[in-house]
Amino acid sequence: MMMSEGVEWALHCCLNLAFLGPGTAVPGARLAAFHELPPVYLHKQMQALVRAGIVSSTPGRRGGFQLARDPAHITLMDVVAAVEGQEPAFRCTEIRSQGPSGSGGTTQAICTIEAAMRKAEMAWRRALAEQTLADLMATVERRYPATPRRISSWFAAG
Amino acid sequence: MMMSEGVEWALHCCLNLAFLGPGTAVPGARLAAFHELPPVYLHKQMQALVRAGIVSSTPGRRGGFQLARDPAHITLMDVVAAVEGQEPAFRCTEIRSQGPSGSGGTTQAICTIEAAMRKAEMAWRRALAEQTLADLMATVERRYPATPRRISSWFAAG
Repeated sequence: MMMSEGVEWALHCCLNLAFLGPGTAVPGARLAAFHELPPVYLHKQMQALVRAGIVSSTPGRRGGFQLARDPAHITLMDVVAAVEGQEPAFRCTEIRSQGPSGSGGTTQAICTIEAAMRKAEMAWRRALAEQTLADLMATVERRYPATPRRISSWFAAG
Repeated sequence: MMMSEGVEWALHCCLNLAFLGPGTAVPGARLAAFHELPPVYLHKQMQALVRAGIVSSTPGRRGGFQLARDPAHITLMDVVAAVEGQEPAFRCTEIRSQGPSGSGGTTQAICTIEAAMRKAEMAWRRALAEQTLADLMATVERRYPATPRRISSWFAAG
């Protein structure tokens, strides 16, 4: 089981946009260049973030991407769901209803295995939802105090 | 992000073996037939469970698969790891070290995004590790009291 690279790209780009603050629209090519990401594939992830209402996109010469809301109101779950979709990782195909002992497809109450797997997945989703971009910014500022200024300078020089 | 069907198959087969109890070796074809699963693909999952020490395999005419240890000592995490591997779902490719602001590959301390994603994934793994096959058996016995006997009867008739 593996998340797409798009999740890593989207998280880093959102964090960079968070450090740039509101009012700074960054062209997609510039956002890609900062981490040497392939611009076309990154664009796909950015569009997913726009559709999810995490990022807004302004057209035109001075246009680009910026966060659509406060970093304190964007969770890791929001970003992961925007890129990976809302489907659970464990998908029950109801094999218990197949075969000699099965109900032949009639739906009983929830499968015990599905319920147990869903319970664990909810713990993961909750832990993603409890962490915001603002939390990540605070951690970076504490651990790597030079990083926010380095990000701002490079994008300002664009 | 999606788990393979093999996880669902492996969990159901382990639960069936748990209900059959120790000392009953079930041929792979019979295990597959109970849920109408493709025997060859299921065999691949059963081999993974054997390699992980969850299931033991006895060769010969009266041979087959049985649980290698008490269902109270087999967690959902054990089964998921046996089938899906131990790799994390979120894999950091260190894109922060790429590009104009990057370190060019020299490893700093852990990436803040990786740490946050790992924290969430640990919550999921912990929740999987907290649930055993014995817990699932207890839930099934409470919710569907006829199921354990139905499983035993069908396999005994083989």
